[in-house]
Amino acid sequence: MQNQDLIIKMVINNWNLQVGRATALIDQIGHVEIYKEVSPGKNRGIYILGHLVAYHDLIPEILGTGERSLPHLFEPFIKNPDNLDAQIPAYSEIRTYFDQVHSELLVHFDKLSLTDWFSRHEAMTDEDFEKDPSRNKLNVLINRISHFAYHLGQLRLLK
Amino acid sequence: MQNQDLIIKMVINNWNLQVGRATALIDQIGHVEIYKEVSPGKNRGIYILGHLVAYHDLIPEILGTGERSLPHLFEPFIKNPDNLDAQIPAYSEIRTYFDQVHSELLVHFDKLSLTDWFSRHEAMTDEDFEKDPSRNKLNVLINRISHFAYHLGQLRLLK
Repeated sequence: MQNQDLIIKMVINNWNLQVGRATALIDQIGHVEIYKEVSPGKNRGIYILGHLVAYHDLIPEILGTGERSLPHLFEPFIKNPDNLDAQIPAYSEIRTYFDQVHSELLVHFDKLSLTDWFSRHEAMTDEDFEKDPSRNKLNVLINRISHFAYHLGQLRLLK
Repeated sequence: MQNQDLIIKMVINNWNLQVGRATALIDQIGHVEIYKEVSPGKNRGIYILGHLVAYHDLIPEILGTGERSLPHLFEPFIKNPDNLDAQIPAYSEIRTYFDQVHSELLVHFDKLSLTDWFSRHEAMTDEDFEKDPSRNKLNVLINRISHFAYHLGQLRLLK
């Protein structure tokens, strides 16, 4: 296997590692504790979980492989901060979305060739990309991995 | 720039992004709040900070570029869990180590050629590496990035 293919495999493997860890962790936390704040006055587990789902649902758009499937999650989990009065879907629904978004993403990743991964992501101009070719699709996924891990560290506190 | 060089640059950039965010965050938290638990009954900020320093101090060994500089941090921050009775260095000392470890790491990263980054890391055998060439030095750094972000998500709760 060439190094370039290998690196894409490595990054996707690391993404899958986060998905696996997250899945195990969420199920250990369970449908009761998930409604608690990860620390007094901070986001509730359910908000962080919804935020991860909503944020990952946007990935196909930035990779240019498809559109978001769960547009109704944008408002409560990305646009707005956690809020006890907000109308949010039930845990069971978000839990289902979590699996759904992550299995769909693997299909999206599969659509991208080596050249695609090193091409510019959809949230920037050709001009900017020429100046900084590191801002490609693979870099989006690397950034999403650290965002994912950041919030897993917080969810972990509910275990 | 070739894609292979580019990907190494991307991973190191992402590492530096975490270092930058961590530095800003720690200084916002300050020397008083850092001694609080990130959530009741969980690790104190000072422990997480010491853990990051001690863990990153080991990176040159796994990359094969040098030895740890702060062996006395292994016991309190890696081998053992957080413990109020443990003798740990003062915040000011750990804060200095934090900068030191991260500037030294950049020198270590610079020592590695493209081929080195794709070679096996020092914590595995040649045989295992042949079976799975994704377990290379670059992969170590990708893993350390998500570990870093995971703990930053926790430290963030002290802000």
